Amino acid sequence: MRAAQGFDKLGKSYLFSEVRARKDAFLKENGGTLIDLGVGDVAFPLPPSSVAAIVAAAEEMGDNVRFRGYPPEGGYDFLRQTIAEAYAEAGVKISDGEVFVGDGAKSDAAAFTTLFEPCEVVIPEPVYPVYLDSALLCGHRPLLLSGSKQNGFLPTPAALKGKEGLVIWLCSPNNPTGAAYDGAGLAEWVRFALDTGSLILFDAAYATFAGDGMPKTIYSVDGARGCAVEFGSFSKFAGFTGMRCSWTVVPHEIMLEKRRLQALWQRRQAAEFNGVSYVVQRAAQAALSPQGRRECRVVIDTYKRNSCVLGHIFQKHGVWHTGCEHSPYLWFECPRGDSWAFFDRLMRTCRVVGTPGVGFGPSGEGFFRLSCFTTPEIAREAAARLDSALPSCM
Amino acid sequence: MRAAQGFDKLGKSYLFSEVRARKDAFLKENGGTLIDLGVGDVAFPLPPSSVAAIVAAAEEMGDNVRFRGYPPEGGYDFLRQTIAEAYAEAGVKISDGEVFVGDGAKSDAAAFTTLFEPCEVVIPEPVYPVYLDSALLCGHRPLLLSGSKQNGFLPTPAALKGKEGLVIWLCSPNNPTGAAYDGAGLAEWVRFALDTGSLILFDAAYATFAGDGMPKTIYSVDGARGCAVEFGSFSKFAGFTGMRCSWTVVPHEIMLEKRRLQALWQRRQAAEFNGVSYVVQRAAQAALSPQGRRECRVVIDTYKRNSCVLGHIFQKHGVWHTGCEHSPYLWFECPRGDSWAFFDRLMRTCRVVGTPGVGFGPSGEGFFRLSCFTTPEIAREAAARLDSALPSCM
Repeated sequence: MRAAQGFDKLGKSYLFSEVRARKDAFLKENGGTLIDLGVGDVAFPLPPSSVAAIVAAAEEMGDNVRFRGYPPEGGYDFLRQTIAEAYAEAGVKISDGEVFVGDGAKSDAAAFTTLFEPCEVVIPEPVYPVYLDSALLCGHRPLLLSGSKQNGFLPTPAALKGKEGLVIWLCSPNNPTGAAYDGAGLAEWVRFALDTGSLILFDAAYATFAGDGMPKTIYSVDGARGCAVEFGSFSKFAGFTGMRCSWTVVPHEIMLEKRRLQALWQRRQAAEFNGVSYVVQRAAQAALSPQGRRECRVVIDTYKRNSCVLGHIFQKHGVWHTGCEHSPYLWFECPRGDSWAFFDRLMRTCRVVGTPGVGFGPSGEGFFRLSCFTTPEIAREAAARLDSALPSCM
Repeated sequence: MRAAQGFDKLGKSYLFSEVRARKDAFLKENGGTLIDLGVGDVAFPLPPSSVAAIVAAAEEMGDNVRFRGYPPEGGYDFLRQTIAEAYAEAGVKISDGEVFVGDGAKSDAAAFTTLFEPCEVVIPEPVYPVYLDSALLCGHRPLLLSGSKQNGFLPTPAALKGKEGLVIWLCSPNNPTGAAYDGAGLAEWVRFALDTGSLILFDAAYATFAGDGMPKTIYSVDGARGCAVEFGSFSKFAGFTGMRCSWTVVPHEIMLEKRRLQALWQRRQAAEFNGVSYVVQRAAQAALSPQGRRECRVVIDTYKRNSCVLGHIFQKHGVWHTGCEHSPYLWFECPRGDSWAFFDRLMRTCRVVGTPGVGFGPSGEGFFRLSCFTTPEIAREAAARLDSALPSCM
């Protein structure tokens, strides 16, 4: 009995645990408080519609007649339908049966990669660590595509010429860079996937942050149904980081040799997952109701305004950055080159915590992420501190 | 890109999906209703203490100050502590940091097997399908140990002589057979594991159903801390099948070559899981409060009485069976030998649905499971129907 080899290939410590450890050590040594724009956790509570739905569901769960036991592994019909309807409103046809409810896009993403025999997994980086970690843990061969100032942190498939049968992760709007593919950019990836028998795993966790005219789902691109799976999340859209709810869309027509990819996913979930809590699914349904969506919109717009407030400071100081327009993240260059050193410097001079870009992949070295999931007051305070300290930090 | 080979080795359809399909087809053809003692889902609602905790947690989640975002991957301290205290009351010393909260023992069990390089995984069968399915999906070599009338469906390690470094699943009280190892039986397994450098994965989901004097945790056996991981669940103990909460105990001292097994599990969860919903964790904590436990006890005792009522009928008709004393399941021999044929026969003659024993492993062929997770009224009605129909069914 030996540890799975994948563990040898993983980085020593999980990014956010390391951020937490350095933060705790600093506070222990220096006391006081820090403005934490590090972990991408939401700042505002659940939408009132979701709170009311949880209370109503709790009452059902305590009632002899209305009580619900094991949920269907793929999610309750009421939620699958509601999600499918949200796609329909965006002009995209997805059937209820193509939607699978999960307990978080991180779990879904990790589980989905186990459907394949070890293969080449394309990961444009810097990016959210789960794609790489899960690929390594199940023996895939990661193929990192570098994001850079030159390509605006939006790599194209050009570097993959001659390759076939790839699994390709795309996250747009991107975490951590906030960069987002436009329709033409996504269409280029879809064309490449169709031409090469590849599969796109599209992480749409930040879709609601994308500005006007930007694709909110990969299925808005012609042909995507034939080559793309989409992961959605209630975490950032409805403040569900503490609730845990997500969905995966697996179009019916995607085949893996002679099998439906959808059937494989269904089989995996039936074998190794027992569905999402009823109360959580009701809360998610409520967040997608017209009233719930209005409540969520107010919060998302607040985060986006924070992003502009902070972005303005970097613009003023002439620091290269992305991410204000289509995301809750600000991604900027820290010219002295060492992301973790900059992390420490920023914490010491401004008492502001962010996330070192290198934690999201080698091409993130020399860059830094600030999360705009905070209140307008804190965003303004952080902006003021950065305004006065940036020159000495840079 | 090809489908993971594990899928080729899995049975065609997941057991409970097949049960559901046959039931639906029967009702479509014949109309009326069925008594469903098939899936092991609970019949009674959540304990009132948990309902109140969900409502209180929902209010917190809607509040600007008390709102909680991402939960710690291993669970909130309040719940880890509460679980550790429950062990302490049972005379077993487990520290908070050895307890990891999950969204269900099925997910935990499947995830835990991915920690190891492909190896021999011992699965006494018949047993809950997740051990075999997850072993096959991640490339382990299953080594089935046959349960039988002769060994009372409690296989011993005798058949494993000469083997080393095994991963060994034990589920006691067992699902589906209801058979339970006593202290001496578990001690034999622990001794074997220590002697051979093997690891026991102990599924204690039905621990609270075990009668007086029976072990409620593997850690009540000397030496178990050195060789056993335990999986606990709120599903059957507190009616949480629809809520999704579980825990895994990984003792600090277990090493896998030079690494702590606990550190591997922590790394896996940090990389591929985002923790359990705050409201669910509060509900689980409330179920373990003194009042919550009293509420749960009433329900468990009801299920155990159902088990006796049904068991009595099988005794009366001289049908070989196990499972009344220590579990919510009744496991009996259906002499004509074909479990699925008996399933259909029972459904047609009694309108009672159960689970074919063969669905839990090859040694289950010729046996049948009835779940006693139902109301006393339904249990009595099922008993009456079986009493009159058993002679013609057998």
